[in-house]
Amino acid sequence: MRVAAATVSYIGTDFFGYQAQPDVRTVQGEFEKALEKIFKQKLSCWGSGRTDTGVHAFGQVIAFMIPNENINVKNLKDGLNSVLPRDIYIRELKEVSEKFNPRFDAKKRVYHYYIHRSEEPNIFIKDRVWWFPYDLDIQLMRNASRYLEGEHDFTSFKSGNDKKNPMRTVNRIRILEMNNNILLIRVEGQSFLRRMVRNIVGTLVKVGTKTWEPETVKELLESKDRSVVPASAPPHGLYFYSVYF
Amino acid sequence: MRVAAATVSYIGTDFFGYQAQPDVRTVQGEFEKALEKIFKQKLSCWGSGRTDTGVHAFGQVIAFMIPNENINVKNLKDGLNSVLPRDIYIRELKEVSEKFNPRFDAKKRVYHYYIHRSEEPNIFIKDRVWWFPYDLDIQLMRNASRYLEGEHDFTSFKSGNDKKNPMRTVNRIRILEMNNNILLIRVEGQSFLRRMVRNIVGTLVKVGTKTWEPETVKELLESKDRSVVPASAPPHGLYFYSVYF
Repeated sequence: MRVAAATVSYIGTDFFGYQAQPDVRTVQGEFEKALEKIFKQKLSCWGSGRTDTGVHAFGQVIAFMIPNENINVKNLKDGLNSVLPRDIYIRELKEVSEKFNPRFDAKKRVYHYYIHRSEEPNIFIKDRVWWFPYDLDIQLMRNASRYLEGEHDFTSFKSGNDKKNPMRTVNRIRILEMNNNILLIRVEGQSFLRRMVRNIVGTLVKVGTKTWEPETVKELLESKDRSVVPASAPPHGLYFYSVYF
Repeated sequence: MRVAAATVSYIGTDFFGYQAQPDVRTVQGEFEKALEKIFKQKLSCWGSGRTDTGVHAFGQVIAFMIPNENINVKNLKDGLNSVLPRDIYIRELKEVSEKFNPRFDAKKRVYHYYIHRSEEPNIFIKDRVWWFPYDLDIQLMRNASRYLEGEHDFTSFKSGNDKKNPMRTVNRIRILEMNNNILLIRVEGQSFLRRMVRNIVGTLVKVGTKTWEPETVKELLESKDRSVVPASAPPHGLYFYSVYF
């Protein structure tokens, strides 16, 4: 059996998240429709991570079986891109081992969160960044992020309905000032709990506005109490950026 | 009579251009609907320039009469933005002289054209830039642009159905390599013929790919023959960037 891995970008705006669900438009659902158009049979696909409604991907990895022994992978990429909707695009497609599992084989996942710091919003990036018209103290945010790096019980930073083991390792958080008043928060780790990155960003922003001290983040982590963390940062600033295997 | 001037951004993708037309969605049509919602009466508006289907604006200037003597301009900006569709946004609104005419009073208009030079397209900027996966010689393009600066008969560079005086002055063309493989072509002049900027960009790109010599641009201008200029650059890379009065 041949297996392919696709590195996929999608604009999250018009999807009810990655995972297939009945009666709503999802990335997995649209991807499986494209596979069916090409291969004339129902096929499943597996992603490296589930993204929520409105969350984008630059480099989600999606694996699927190739039922046709003769098909050329380069042609397959072009063929799938020609039938995928305009908000999903396969950047790269390659054949991988038949044992490849995009979820469990992932050694590192990288998320990017983009904040647009400006008094006025810019409609051209409205659904692609979090527009934030208030002051942010970047150094305080960086200080706060140090408490989140390393292995911790992230109960305080998960979604209420995530029942997984809350122990996670955040390898690194980088906060970078880019051109055009864009602030990038880059979060790296092997795996994340549901809503964890958006809760981390929401918390760092509370520190940036001086609502909280950097040390509050340490207390939040130690409290292991889901109810103390503020609202998540909105989904439309978040990108599932890349996966390393 | 009070008159207001709005500096307006819009995403051209879902409009049949600026100018109001029956039965299609236009910027002027949507803007006049918003005025009617706020003032409870039909009102007209006037723009600094007409943009074609798919062309964006960062700083189109739109003027209209304020029929209510008591309204505060700051509140009016917020009120209009709250009823305008999500692909139009008023960045600035101010009261101007009642003699103000956004079209005839404009001393300088600036257009930006963005080309994304990359082997792979990027879906996040798909409708906002011209994706161009071939080599471009920037120096040749700059050399060619020199022939277009100054006062010329731009018959060769206009749309077939533009009957206006073809004498125009292009003050300056700048070609800048930006971050993320974006090439910006900035064109400044007092006024432009229909399709003129897109024809200029299409021509410079033909020089960049070495299909034409820079000197060919001089010959094209001198031929004053509409039929010799190649297809325009596509509309979705073009922005009506700013207007000076």
